[in-house]
Amino acid sequence: MREFKRLTPYRDAFRMMMDDLREIPNAEEVSLTEALGRVLAEDVTSPTDSPPFDRSAVDGYALRAEDTFPAREYSPVELRVVDEITAGEESGITVESGTAVKLMTGAKLPEGANAVIMQEMVEREGDVIRVLRPVAPGQNVAFAGEDVNKGEVVLKKGQILRPQDLALLKSLGFKTVNVKRKPRVGIIITGDELIEEFDEDALMSGKIMESNSVMLMGLVRQYFGEPVFYGVVPDEEDVIRSAIERAKRECDLVLVTGGSAFGDKDFAHRFVRLLFHGTTIKPGRPIGYGEKVFIMSGYPAAVFAQFHLYVKHALAKLVGVRDYEVKVYAQLTERIPSQLGRYEFVKVYYENGKAKAIRKKGSGIISSLVKSNGYIVIPEDSEGYLKGDVVIAILY
Amino acid sequence: MREFKRLTPYRDAFRMMMDDLREIPNAEEVSLTEALGRVLAEDVTSPTDSPPFDRSAVDGYALRAEDTFPAREYSPVELRVVDEITAGEESGITVESGTAVKLMTGAKLPEGANAVIMQEMVEREGDVIRVLRPVAPGQNVAFAGEDVNKGEVVLKKGQILRPQDLALLKSLGFKTVNVKRKPRVGIIITGDELIEEFDEDALMSGKIMESNSVMLMGLVRQYFGEPVFYGVVPDEEDVIRSAIERAKRECDLVLVTGGSAFGDKDFAHRFVRLLFHGTTIKPGRPIGYGEKVFIMSGYPAAVFAQFHLYVKHALAKLVGVRDYEVKVYAQLTERIPSQLGRYEFVKVYYENGKAKAIRKKGSGIISSLVKSNGYIVIPEDSEGYLKGDVVIAILY
Repeated sequence: MREFKRLTPYRDAFRMMMDDLREIPNAEEVSLTEALGRVLAEDVTSPTDSPPFDRSAVDGYALRAEDTFPAREYSPVELRVVDEITAGEESGITVESGTAVKLMTGAKLPEGANAVIMQEMVEREGDVIRVLRPVAPGQNVAFAGEDVNKGEVVLKKGQILRPQDLALLKSLGFKTVNVKRKPRVGIIITGDELIEEFDEDALMSGKIMESNSVMLMGLVRQYFGEPVFYGVVPDEEDVIRSAIERAKRECDLVLVTGGSAFGDKDFAHRFVRLLFHGTTIKPGRPIGYGEKVFIMSGYPAAVFAQFHLYVKHALAKLVGVRDYEVKVYAQLTERIPSQLGRYEFVKVYYENGKAKAIRKKGSGIISSLVKSNGYIVIPEDSEGYLKGDVVIAILY
Repeated sequence: MREFKRLTPYRDAFRMMMDDLREIPNAEEVSLTEALGRVLAEDVTSPTDSPPFDRSAVDGYALRAEDTFPAREYSPVELRVVDEITAGEESGITVESGTAVKLMTGAKLPEGANAVIMQEMVEREGDVIRVLRPVAPGQNVAFAGEDVNKGEVVLKKGQILRPQDLALLKSLGFKTVNVKRKPRVGIIITGDELIEEFDEDALMSGKIMESNSVMLMGLVRQYFGEPVFYGVVPDEEDVIRSAIERAKRECDLVLVTGGSAFGDKDFAHRFVRLLFHGTTIKPGRPIGYGEKVFIMSGYPAAVFAQFHLYVKHALAKLVGVRDYEVKVYAQLTERIPSQLGRYEFVKVYYENGKAKAIRKKGSGIISSLVKSNGYIVIPEDSEGYLKGDVVIAILY
């Protein structure tokens, strides 16, 4: 066995990877009802002013504000109601001095009117309303273009589409939206020690249940990609080589787990021109990357750290997405020591502004992943954090 | 038009709604690859110890720690390598004093051995290794059951399944998992003023583009449900009545937008025995609930607030989910005044521990939803917050 001659610092490896990757150019047009969670492929500009006209923001009476200036509770101003319209209707009438038009929220402000009084604020008798207080010009009016102006960029390329974004698109008349094609991410699991069927005897004799496949498929789906599973392949040079070659042809990114170290049966790294192999991250040190292929560990906790520290960002670059991490400030409930020279990925449980490290020795440990809901990082030049320190946690 | 005689305080209405709803009992068995984001229907206990045996946490040599106690750099201890095994194999050999077995991470610790030394820490020549420093008993060994004990609850009912949870299930031998059936949520949009096709003339004469449907479908999907869209129905008593009746038969929850106030064309509330109608929330005051039906506003920003303040929690109760909100502490970058007596839903943009209110007048305003990524609430008895105050923001 060889060892890593030199570990590439986390940030340097990160930069090499990001510089090597290119955003995928392909977009696809999908209907708004299919666009939730997809990544916007281009800026969206508004084809129209919204609202397209001045409209009422409340249920009430459109009037001329000037008419109400003398209004007092002991000497109300009386106005004659000359029309009644609902939200979708338009009044043909011009509001002259001394008159008002009853309307509902969203209705177009009639000609002549410049303010709306809420219906609760007036007394009505027959076709006359009594206004007890002055109304300011513009009160309860939503002006044309107040929400969105024609030509304004309302949604930016790289944004993940949320329910309210879809509502905005629909309100502007769009029926479809151009989103990025989901990157296809090939997943190849290697390791003769892995079994797919639970078998106590096999496990007692040293075999290990394969679990990285379902975890990586889930992570890829969470981070904008479409997983393509190439199965669990045996530790045979030819089989691994052809699986990697096929996945490279068919996918935008390839993840190979197992065999990232320099063991006698670690073949994967021989078939890819790696830009780096072995970085300062802990766990997950043996990670390698080159030609859109990640050579990853076999141990789930190491794979998980490698995914969050590298692969997630690679996927974000492929689709050009911004703002895909939830970062929060968290106060540490206990000291977290760290090894100098290692970029540590420390799983934490975050709640109510506080974070507690979830640490168990052994990078094969899945339960610590399950008990955590986020992570913090400790750079190479830090010996860790003290109890009470406030640090940035990234939630998952 | 009538007005609300009395606004029910937010919390009181919330409690009435939650007390009225029952968790849906139905679960469905899905394969692990389909379970991402679903809600666990029952506690999962481990059928086995994991790891099932003591195993090596590193690539190295299994040995008897006692043999190494005298080791010093200037007088190394020599051990004879009597076997080599990889992760999935088992050594039939017992490690006797003076011997060692080469093994890889995850491999079962051979009989007789009680510690593992990392391969980088020894010098090897032929079948002899030189140990330069003492090794402690248990060092680099992951003990049986250290990750998970047989019978231990590893995942709790009500948890949203994440990639790492699926990995744990797979590692314990599960191929499927029981998740809650997704609640069916009927969506009925009412309003004669609404149009589905963009038409500038119609918009200029007061019509409004319908946009709540796509927003609510997205929100329902985000919060554990399956939307069932019953279309945009005209403001006609019979049509609305039959749409609500059909949706109540076919769904677990029904959302009706438009007509929640007491306008002449607001019919929806007449067909449902409401537990409350009109609460102190702002925006979204006219919300009503009863018989699993929400009567909601027509204005997107009001609907959005009503969804987050009420409907989201109703859905969570139906599926029995815990921990579905991302809550962060945020420092306000400016003062946020609030009206006494109203439970205000204030949209904010949260970044790096700071939050800025995104406020625009008019509850029809969609752009403020789009510019925000979370919200804070200001209870009825508060006049708001000052610049620099630290408050809890809920991200979306």
